[in-house]
Amino acid sequence: MHKKSIEVCLTPALLNLYDIKESVVVVIDILRATSSIVYGIDNGATAIIPVAHVEDCLNYADKGYLLAAERNGEVVAGYDFGNSPFSYVSDKVKNKTVVLTTTNGTKALHLAQVNAHQVVIGAFLNLKALCSWLKSQEKDVLLLCAGWKDKFNLEDTLFAGAVVNELRKDFTHFDDSCVAAEDLYLLAKDDLRNYLHKSSHSHRLAELNIEEDVKFCLQLNICQAIPVLVGEALVALKA
Amino acid sequence: MHKKSIEVCLTPALLNLYDIKESVVVVIDILRATSSIVYGIDNGATAIIPVAHVEDCLNYADKGYLLAAERNGEVVAGYDFGNSPFSYVSDKVKNKTVVLTTTNGTKALHLAQVNAHQVVIGAFLNLKALCSWLKSQEKDVLLLCAGWKDKFNLEDTLFAGAVVNELRKDFTHFDDSCVAAEDLYLLAKDDLRNYLHKSSHSHRLAELNIEEDVKFCLQLNICQAIPVLVGEALVALKA
Repeated sequence: MHKKSIEVCLTPALLNLYDIKESVVVVIDILRATSSIVYGIDNGATAIIPVAHVEDCLNYADKGYLLAAERNGEVVAGYDFGNSPFSYVSDKVKNKTVVLTTTNGTKALHLAQVNAHQVVIGAFLNLKALCSWLKSQEKDVLLLCAGWKDKFNLEDTLFAGAVVNELRKDFTHFDDSCVAAEDLYLLAKDDLRNYLHKSSHSHRLAELNIEEDVKFCLQLNICQAIPVLVGEALVALKA
Repeated sequence: MHKKSIEVCLTPALLNLYDIKESVVVVIDILRATSSIVYGIDNGATAIIPVAHVEDCLNYADKGYLLAAERNGEVVAGYDFGNSPFSYVSDKVKNKTVVLTTTNGTKALHLAQVNAHQVVIGAFLNLKALCSWLKSQEKDVLLLCAGWKDKFNLEDTLFAGAVVNELRKDFTHFDDSCVAAEDLYLLAKDDLRNYLHKSSHSHRLAELNIEEDVKFCLQLNICQAIPVLVGEALVALKA
């Protein structure tokens, strides 16, 4: 049996150090891109296409897709909605394709796509479903934190730690960033929201007035969907 | 009064993300480069010149310097000693200049030197002396972990966390990697050696048979010296 390894890449700026040709890469951007993506796919969206800039959305304007774009916490005029997971409810997204603007998440996805065996999306919302599937695959796993402008951030690292914690018994090799991420998660897990108050990002988010979004994104296991990247679009993985 | 910030750069590959023009950069390579450097300067070495490759040592062969080079845990034939801190005792290094081969540490030093206001050397051995001096400076601090081949490592991050913990009351701004490093340090501090058994590096070090070196490098506050980079050489900082 293949000895399976897990590594945590703490920011996309370090991805070139990892050999991911035979790995499943899990892209993590907890606040809020990958949480919204998991929730949207779970609620029946046909596909979600992540793009880096609001302007990129315009390339999809005449295709009948929903366009999601936000600047400074406000929906951009003329767009259907923003990045709040509350926009990705069944009533709005079922059987629709959504184009989502997200800087850090899109960068991580595009970098991973070039070399990875497969790219999937993780969030606290689908933690157990994701981990069950990862256990069933005979593949190494790289947990790719989208971070903040290529720097380390706490919330993505905590989620990586949660995955390591779930997979520990089924994998054999763990790098130093796995150890760190898991221990930080174990420290924070009883009150993730409170722990994140320590983070710099938390202050920035408070200014954006998205406290309800943050609480939503820190819920565990309310979704079964595992979004997988196919071409430029994220769709539901068929188990 | 200047509001002072601390940031932790988890690997040299991320250094370009930080503005360090007005900052003191503390280079950290606990196992074993910066520990040996602190110990050597504390024991009266005139200067220590870090170079990246064994071959680079040869440029200094006719200057009367001590040459330290090691491959796979063995002193290279024809060199005076290796990288063990036990080589940097007073009897051997007092009033001498040493050329030290260290891959990760040298890379971090050279990168920092280009832009930083000042570059100093940190290790558990000089933790308190270093922190007292950092408190007295009206400068921001960047803690630069040398890591392992540009990846995150535990021992350098734990030391960064120890510095954050010492400086917390005297500084006002902390980034997410400060929070993570400090919490990991607080988790590990009662038995650093035991905590590091979790790390991948630890297994590699065990193969090199340098357990005594590791224990030595994890001692706190046995040195007062703060090595500072002047040109290509590390010398004792004059307080």
